Amino acid sequence: MREVAILGVGQTKFGELWDRSFREIGIEAGFAALQSSKLSSRDLSALYIGNMASGTYIDQEHVAPLVLDYSGLAGHHLPSVRVEAGGASGAVALHQGYLAVASGLYDFVVVGGAEKMTDVPEERGSAIASSAVDQEWETVFGATMPGLWALIAQRHMHEHGTKREDFAQMAVLDHEHAGKNPFAHYRNKISLDAVLSSTPVASPLGMLDCAPSSDGAAAVVLGPLERARKFTDTPIKISASQIATDTMAVMHRRDVTTLDATVLAAKRAFQRSGLEPSKIQLAEVHDSYSIGGLIALEDLGFFPKGKAGGALADGGLGLGGKLVLNPSGGLKAQGQPFGAVGIAQVAEIVRQLRGEAGDRQVSGATAGLAHNVGGTGATAVVTILERVN
Amino acid sequence: MREVAILGVGQTKFGELWDRSFREIGIEAGFAALQSSKLSSRDLSALYIGNMASGTYIDQEHVAPLVLDYSGLAGHHLPSVRVEAGGASGAVALHQGYLAVASGLYDFVVVGGAEKMTDVPEERGSAIASSAVDQEWETVFGATMPGLWALIAQRHMHEHGTKREDFAQMAVLDHEHAGKNPFAHYRNKISLDAVLSSTPVASPLGMLDCAPSSDGAAAVVLGPLERARKFTDTPIKISASQIATDTMAVMHRRDVTTLDATVLAAKRAFQRSGLEPSKIQLAEVHDSYSIGGLIALEDLGFFPKGKAGGALADGGLGLGGKLVLNPSGGLKAQGQPFGAVGIAQVAEIVRQLRGEAGDRQVSGATAGLAHNVGGTGATAVVTILERVN
Repeated sequence: MREVAILGVGQTKFGELWDRSFREIGIEAGFAALQSSKLSSRDLSALYIGNMASGTYIDQEHVAPLVLDYSGLAGHHLPSVRVEAGGASGAVALHQGYLAVASGLYDFVVVGGAEKMTDVPEERGSAIASSAVDQEWETVFGATMPGLWALIAQRHMHEHGTKREDFAQMAVLDHEHAGKNPFAHYRNKISLDAVLSSTPVASPLGMLDCAPSSDGAAAVVLGPLERARKFTDTPIKISASQIATDTMAVMHRRDVTTLDATVLAAKRAFQRSGLEPSKIQLAEVHDSYSIGGLIALEDLGFFPKGKAGGALADGGLGLGGKLVLNPSGGLKAQGQPFGAVGIAQVAEIVRQLRGEAGDRQVSGATAGLAHNVGGTGATAVVTILERVN
Repeated sequence: MREVAILGVGQTKFGELWDRSFREIGIEAGFAALQSSKLSSRDLSALYIGNMASGTYIDQEHVAPLVLDYSGLAGHHLPSVRVEAGGASGAVALHQGYLAVASGLYDFVVVGGAEKMTDVPEERGSAIASSAVDQEWETVFGATMPGLWALIAQRHMHEHGTKREDFAQMAVLDHEHAGKNPFAHYRNKISLDAVLSSTPVASPLGMLDCAPSSDGAAAVVLGPLERARKFTDTPIKISASQIATDTMAVMHRRDVTTLDATVLAAKRAFQRSGLEPSKIQLAEVHDSYSIGGLIALEDLGFFPKGKAGGALADGGLGLGGKLVLNPSGGLKAQGQPFGAVGIAQVAEIVRQLRGEAGDRQVSGATAGLAHNVGGTGATAVVTILERVN
């Protein structure tokens, strides 16, 4: 199969974008990605869209041709495909775009991710978010998304001695980084005390442990690596894109303090890329709940089981460290438009590897990893990106 | 890219399956496809699911890992991906499975399509169906799915002299064939008079011009053609799988009596396969509304514009003819579980090319075509399948 490169990235600001529609944010991100790549829309051969729940958030399915149409590209009659995998919809869509180019059937492909979440009442939003977990075996008994992550947190504390402060630190770090990211939903700093004393959601998780509902879109342009130099001076290679799955319900898992889907996706991705965790200088991990970010650090192989908490508490994962965690601000502070998250993570890594990340630049980064999760880990995707010299 | 073959197919009965859940029908179809292919679940490398609107029909997103999990395969941690493209979700999912195998990253892949439509009240069902067309430019003004197809029919009658009886004949033919298909939702014959005098839905379309809401699932197993003989004596080659798109809203189209997405997907598919319409002995076309089937015959190149009506009225498209249309009974009579339709069409062609279609066998068939549409034609997919000698 052909090697695949990312030629450009684009993104809207994440937040409560009440004055703009789904199609508008999709188009903004797509065109920004095209501009960043020096491709023209005439060069494109397909469009992929990652989106979790447009059918319920905006009463609209079939959103891939919708975005294509309102981009003014309907006349090209390009193939357009929507992909859904809960909060991992973005990275799973990226995987399909990657296969499309790798197969040789398509040359240049835009992969976008978009979600418009803030136009529904909050209770409705919670119900929609929970439709990514098992409705018949979890939600029906009252287990919501934060409730399930809280159970995971409790068990992690019990088994591995993790402290409440350890994962609270994840949110502090995210907000620190997001302050330097103009696309971020929340750019304010927060203190550890603020997280610890935030309104309880599901014990031990407080409001500031939970990523927000956000509107937003992000996009990347993919093409064959061998032709990438024509369109960018700094092509970024997709060294691996790997998906793994697990049971939908948390209770059916071997060990609820580990996401086996993450472990396996990471293992396959490191194997395919020929890299190992120590070669990664920055990682965007899926921290829809702060405990999820902590567990990801362990499951991805950056720290042994039970040791990520200490690493977070000690600091050292911020800018200037050996491994920089969530330079974008992560889901907690950059924001969490479900379908866009996985693409925004990759976009941030590309900006970093290109040296275009401004105040939050990780200096000299050559390899980064993105980790995107659907539900409570029924889907996990690991994408490894490298700068090509 | 590698050539891709279909190694097995499976399907549930289509209909009002009130005693069975989404996950149950998905599993039944998947296992039937595996059995028909002589593969074991251990041979699989990925699962794709085409599904339009599980988020609204059954309040459950993230259905690809759901089906994988309840198949007992969560322990394999296989990648699983849901694809959505309105009523074309099935064929678009098949396209992704095809790319997955063609790329070389995956070897054996199950592609399923499933929808559970009959557990919601009728009015709710209509609203969900209409979420595949442009909510902001069509539905908001009262244009429903049958309303839009009725406008298309009116214009086709006006411009091409098509008669009401011509497309009514499509429904008659479908029911005739479905009588021989044990999977079909409706197995009764209907007369031309019955269609013409059926309850008006949107003039000129009556109730019997409209495909039903159905529950159902279908699945196929894909693998590299070069390894296919190990798993089946009669591998069926995917000679082409092509997607094209168009504007979401009918009013924005060049010509509302033609689906340009169909024309282009067909042109690209015939080009890729090296075949032409005269070499196709059977076709499954997307007749969610009878007029859609008539227009497909023209847009696919089987008849010149304005001539398909006469061909339908004259008969000759039934079993024993040069081109057999919808041997399965089509969407009208086999049924229309949105996500499953495109896979069921392909499954029927595979059964026919393998000589396993029982009473409705098209004798000596070597090449068949499936045509799957999303919305009113914003997505169209053409798949060409050939028997390998």
